[in-house]
Order: sequence, then structure tokens, then C-alpha cells
Amino acid sequence: MTHVGTTPRTTPSRLAKRSTQELEQIYAILDEGLFCHIAYIEGNSPMLLPTGYGRIGDKLYIHGSVGSHLMRSLADGREVCLAVSLLDGLVLARSAFHHSVNYRSVVLFAKGELVTDEQERWDALEAFTEHVMPGRWAEVRQPSASDMKKTMVIAFPIVEASAKMRTGNVNDDEEDLSLPVWAGVLPLSLQASSPIPDPILNPEIAVPAYVEQYNRQRKA
Amino acid sequence: MTHVGTTPRTTPSRLAKRSTQELEQIYAILDEGLFCHIAYIEGNSPMLLPTGYGRIGDKLYIHGSVGSHLMRSLADGREVCLAVSLLDGLVLARSAFHHSVNYRSVVLFAKGELVTDEQERWDALEAFTEHVMPGRWAEVRQPSASDMKKTMVIAFPIVEASAKMRTGNVNDDEEDLSLPVWAGVLPLSLQASSPIPDPILNPEIAVPAYVEQYNRQRKA
Repeated sequence: MTHVGTTPRTTPSRLAKRSTQELEQIYAILDEGLFCHIAYIEGNSPMLLPTGYGRIGDKLYIHGSVGSHLMRSLADGREVCLAVSLLDGLVLARSAFHHSVNYRSVVLFAKGELVTDEQERWDALEAFTEHVMPGRWAEVRQPSASDMKKTMVIAFPIVEASAKMRTGNVNDDEEDLSLPVWAGVLPLSLQASSPIPDPILNPEIAVPAYVEQYNRQRKA
Repeated sequence: MTHVGTTPRTTPSRLAKRSTQELEQIYAILDEGLFCHIAYIEGNSPMLLPTGYGRIGDKLYIHGSVGSHLMRSLADGREVCLAVSLLDGLVLARSAFHHSVNYRSVVLFAKGELVTDEQERWDALEAFTEHVMPGRWAEVRQPSASDMKKTMVIAFPIVEASAKMRTGNVNDDEEDLSLPVWAGVLPLSLQASSPIPDPILNPEIAVPAYVEQYNRQRKA
């Protein structure tokens, strides 16, 4: 199993047993998450951007409008801290104190790199679309020259990264185990409900299988 | 309708039509979210912490171990940027370019205040528990003096905050409307599945209604 670089920042001082630098695990969490939070510094203040992303190999890509001040800020090579967090369940202990959550998260430290190569830009947009909705890219009207001109793509190398998680059941204190309180885990997951067609959609166009079976695909 | 303070930071320069400073909306998003991301600066680097929270009035509370370096950092009054982001659906346009997401998010700028008043600390822990699982606090073994000693509570005033959202259907270019491509919205939401009892739970203890009906409660 391959590992990515461990630095003091990606080696948590507490709860180290929940940590891992295993690359496969990091990739799996990044691939399951649908959006990330990016922390950066503007002036002397911390700032946060929630945004979508795609991954190709050891690079994570975001995109946005070339007119966006924010995108230009992130493309200037400043350091960011990026997190993808998946909430897997509520851990309901017998005591308030031992309540917890099951989760998987990745934290990545990186500097944004403006992508200028046209093929890499195209591939990043395809990866972004396929990440959110596998099967979609081949079917839609792909980016025009004008679309590409309006779009900025930024790459973050996945090098200084760590995964953290909690799984499993409740951990109550011995003396609380006999309390008449239900204890266990309530699993949570992001689920799709019935697709809502565009009101002006030609009614002869059927919902694609990759939309209809989105929940099943994500589990696979 | 009441509004919270607007500063240059909470007045987005782009897509202003998606923005609002309406307090009710900010509270509703904070109350529906189950965890937040907190950005802060350590040394000269941006850092991110995903964590749970609770709200009482115009204050948002987090808690953690008194032994946590991170909690002590956030309690020292440094500036943070905190975000709660809810993903409501995937917007599947006929063109790759117009794909989007429906979402609701709150961004809050604040300085952490270490809570020392014992009643406020207690109330914050109750708010935290009830936020994640309404009905739970009254049933569980509430914090002991020792639990309280191990726990640090930090308050963030909800003053400099803004909400942002996208709702509704696809916005394709006129010339793409006749393409034979399905277009619409796939709604997404966090859903609970069947609760998993602690393997050592007394089997006579039934699953509480507030756990069994978690999805329905969250919708209400």
C-alpha cells in the first residue's frame, strides 16, 4: 500500500489510531465526497469556499469563472487547506458525554496551480462531471471554445494529505452499561430521491439509467 | 425580518441574487446542518476543522477535550471563518457548462470565546445534543462533574454572517434546448437508515421514536 507524505501537520497529536496516510483510503474518500471546503488566507483573515471538485490520479481539480476574484486568488499559488468530510452515522451512547459520530474525512494541504494546458483543462472538466454523475459526460453537449474561455481550472497536488475516520459502535463507560437507555448507531448517508425533469423537457426523453440508479451506483 | 451585519466580506461580489443576510434563513441552515467546517490560521497556514455544533439564539457553540491543542487554539480569540453547507441536489443541464448544484450555505466570521459560566456550558452541551438528535438529552445519562471538567466549550457570536443558496431548475442556453439530452434536478438529502443497536444492549430496550422517525423529524 502506498502512502503519501507525512508532515507534522498531517500527523494528528490526538486520536492517532483513527488516522491513516494510506493513499487508497484518501482517494476513496475524495471520490465519494461530492464537494470540499477550501480554507485560504485573504489579508490576515481565514476564508472558506465550499466547492465541487474532480480527481485525476494524484491531482484534485476545481473550476470556476475566469471573472471570479476568488478563483484568481486560489490560482496565485497561496497555500490552502482542503477538506472532504463524509458523515456516516450518529453514535448514540448511554451518556451524553460519549455521543459521537462515525465519519470519514480527508485534509489536504496544497498550493493551487493554474492549469493552462488545454487537454488537461478538458480532462479536468470531464473528471469533474463524471465525479458528480458518472455517465453524464458522454451524453451532454461538451464545452465549446467559448465555454472553455470562460472557465478557469486549478489543480491541487494530493501530496500532503491525511485521512481520519471513526467507525463502529458506542463506547460507554462500564458503569453506564446497565442504564435503561437505548444505545447504538444511526447510519446516515446522502441519498437521491426521484429526479425532477426540466419543465420544458421533451417528454419523450427518458430519465437515463445513471440518474435513475444513482443511489445504487454510489454504493457500488 | 431581522438582518445581521453586512460587511464587505459577507457581501459577495458575484451572484448577489443568491445571497441573503436574512437572519431566519441563516438560523434555519445552521439548525439543519449537522456539522460545520472551521477555518483558522496556525502560524502562517490556513487550517480546517470539521466538527459538530449547537446553536442557542445568536451564538453557535462547539465543544471538545480540554486536552486538545486545537480547542485551545480556537479559544484564544483568533478569527475564524465557519461554514455550514447543505447539498440539496444535482442540476443536470443539457450542456456540461451549465451543470450546477442546488445548495444552501452559511458563512460566519467570528472570534471564539471560551465559555466559563457553568450554566452556559451545560446549556451549550444540551443544545449540541438536541441539535443532532432532538429528544435525546432528557433520556441519557447527563454530564457528570468529571465529564464537565474534561470538556471545553467555545462560543462564536453569529453577527457577521451570510447565507447563500441556489434553488430551482436548469438554466441551459437557448440553442441547447432542443438537444436530445435529459435535463433536470436530482434531489439529494442526508437520510438515516435502520438503527444498529449496541451488540451488548439489553434487547428489551426498544428503539426510541425520535431515533426511529429521524428522517420524518428532520423534514418537519
